[in-house]
Amino acid sequence: MISPEQVLAALRNVEDPDLKKDLVTLNMIKDLKIVDKQVSFTLELTTPACPMKDMLKNACLNAVKHFVSQEAEVEINITSRVTKPMDTTQLKDIRNIILVSSGKGGVGKSTVASNLAITLAADGAKVGLIDADIYGPSVPTMFDLVGAKPSARETEDGKTLILPIEKYGIKLLSLGFFADPDQPVPWRGPMASNAIKQLFNDADWGELDYLIVDLPPGTGDIHITVTQSFPIAGAVIVTTPQQVALADTRKGLAMFKMPSINIPVLGVIENMAYFTPEELPDNKYYIFGKDGGKELAKSFSVPFLGEIPILQSITAGGDSGVPVALDRTNKIAVSFAEIAGRVAQQIAINNAQTAGDLSLTV
Amino acid sequence: MISPEQVLAALRNVEDPDLKKDLVTLNMIKDLKIVDKQVSFTLELTTPACPMKDMLKNACLNAVKHFVSQEAEVEINITSRVTKPMDTTQLKDIRNIILVSSGKGGVGKSTVASNLAITLAADGAKVGLIDADIYGPSVPTMFDLVGAKPSARETEDGKTLILPIEKYGIKLLSLGFFADPDQPVPWRGPMASNAIKQLFNDADWGELDYLIVDLPPGTGDIHITVTQSFPIAGAVIVTTPQQVALADTRKGLAMFKMPSINIPVLGVIENMAYFTPEELPDNKYYIFGKDGGKELAKSFSVPFLGEIPILQSITAGGDSGVPVALDRTNKIAVSFAEIAGRVAQQIAINNAQTAGDLSLTV
Repeated sequence: MISPEQVLAALRNVEDPDLKKDLVTLNMIKDLKIVDKQVSFTLELTTPACPMKDMLKNACLNAVKHFVSQEAEVEINITSRVTKPMDTTQLKDIRNIILVSSGKGGVGKSTVASNLAITLAADGAKVGLIDADIYGPSVPTMFDLVGAKPSARETEDGKTLILPIEKYGIKLLSLGFFADPDQPVPWRGPMASNAIKQLFNDADWGELDYLIVDLPPGTGDIHITVTQSFPIAGAVIVTTPQQVALADTRKGLAMFKMPSINIPVLGVIENMAYFTPEELPDNKYYIFGKDGGKELAKSFSVPFLGEIPILQSITAGGDSGVPVALDRTNKIAVSFAEIAGRVAQQIAINNAQTAGDLSLTV
Repeated sequence: MISPEQVLAALRNVEDPDLKKDLVTLNMIKDLKIVDKQVSFTLELTTPACPMKDMLKNACLNAVKHFVSQEAEVEINITSRVTKPMDTTQLKDIRNIILVSSGKGGVGKSTVASNLAITLAADGAKVGLIDADIYGPSVPTMFDLVGAKPSARETEDGKTLILPIEKYGIKLLSLGFFADPDQPVPWRGPMASNAIKQLFNDADWGELDYLIVDLPPGTGDIHITVTQSFPIAGAVIVTTPQQVALADTRKGLAMFKMPSINIPVLGVIENMAYFTPEELPDNKYYIFGKDGGKELAKSFSVPFLGEIPILQSITAGGDSGVPVALDRTNKIAVSFAEIAGRVAQQIAINNAQTAGDLSLTV
């Protein structure tokens, strides 16, 4: 007869490599049931996009077989409960706000933000996306929502809330939904800042694991407003390998490390890493230089999250309103899945550190 | 014996195809000297970058031979006197301020602005370049001037003037000269606006035919400040063929056409039009789509100024601090020369129209 204590003792030998603690201490084992030789439990991860999902599942299986009984028939369900960086009453149903940023424009922030959102949602997370690039909102084009208008609802206390538009399982808001696509928005900083705050505060986001924010280029009003007004889990930095892009990106990254801002940098993504033509699938043309993103990450001691090549399918995807990550079989989608896993992982690690040990133990 | 009247009468048959008037009416014939059969004069164009230089010279030659004497030995010098869009006391020694703009970041504004400046200077114009991309100044990298610091001088009335840095025959100022390259500039709009005004007002520009201004992406504080504070000859719009870039660029372009701003759009330049690998010099990969810039120009009824392909030599040029247009033999430099000619031509046409007929007649 197998006892719950035996199984838990066995699982104490399995450590989460990121959080550096065993799964029982981390309170990740739930719903343990034992009927004769049949052992079933739920492994509750800190993110549905956990890149070590399969590894942890196997480790649990082996631990029970090894420490309890080779005869045990083990069934492991995997779920996740996404952690929060801090407890704030502000935006309390939004667990993690992730900024997608770069000092430089045109490096693919919107492509990265959109595909990151799609990948996390496909993994099972509840995801929202705010397009904060007030002067050049790309989300309407990327999600085939040009001309779409969000509706609103009244709350019981008489407040009007904007309803984000749902597409591909993601809740979306873009300043682009509120302006004529052909009309410029010649706004000075304070107007832009107020508009962006409304997208956070006056929208019915519901419960979200991740709210991804596609920031405009630079280090201006929007950046200052967003970083000072809301609790941010971390920032993802996008760059191309070009020196002139790296110079700006370096400043964009340094901004998050300033004492007055102090937001964790989750890592660097190198976009447009190389170009591969269809007829020459083995050729990599380093059109914009090589390894610039990797070196940037290294020089700031932040993780390198991955590289994304230029393939016509990416730009066509963004332009056609069908982001490339929707089809998990293509090469770019695989890159995005790896990157999304690393982003979610970094957040889980940071949250565990911020929370300290107590909140995660039984 | 040939008389001056005969020669001028002959030259009245040569029309400037842009300004739609003959060269004598336009007051473009100077220093006419006749000694026996030797006729010499100076043809004073409205820009040293005039694309019709040779055509006009030939037309003058033929007119004298045909209407005066086949025996005449004609010598024509070409100079230029760049016209101004309007008479203002403000920045009175700067003839034409040209904005290089785009709603979108990363489309190559700085590459275009730098190479345009270099081409116009190589043609003999007096050229200045202001890098107004306050959050991501690229000029220091593009001109190999990272870490350079402009000096200053005192005027007789006790004012301090910044001395632009000269390189490749161009007077340069960039916010990047005043900040640590690795330090972010997290400035709200009013600070950014004041800084940019100083680059215009408090610098010793001397006499300039063209002052090119590399604007940041978007339609924010800097754009509003520059367009409202200074007399602008026109704006050059840079885009890539990508839909998401075009969407933003369309707004950037529309901004100049707003009644409150109302600045002539000199035309659209399509950057990153296609990629050609070295081994396949006949292949054009339309990585970001095809003809987007051309269609944008058409839909706004503004001139299409030309396209620039992606060649490793362009990005390498920008990154190495040796802009590609410096070597007039390469393919990209030829594209820039054509584009610069069209820009200068558009300005001359606009200036002639603004000035009306009188200021150009004898």
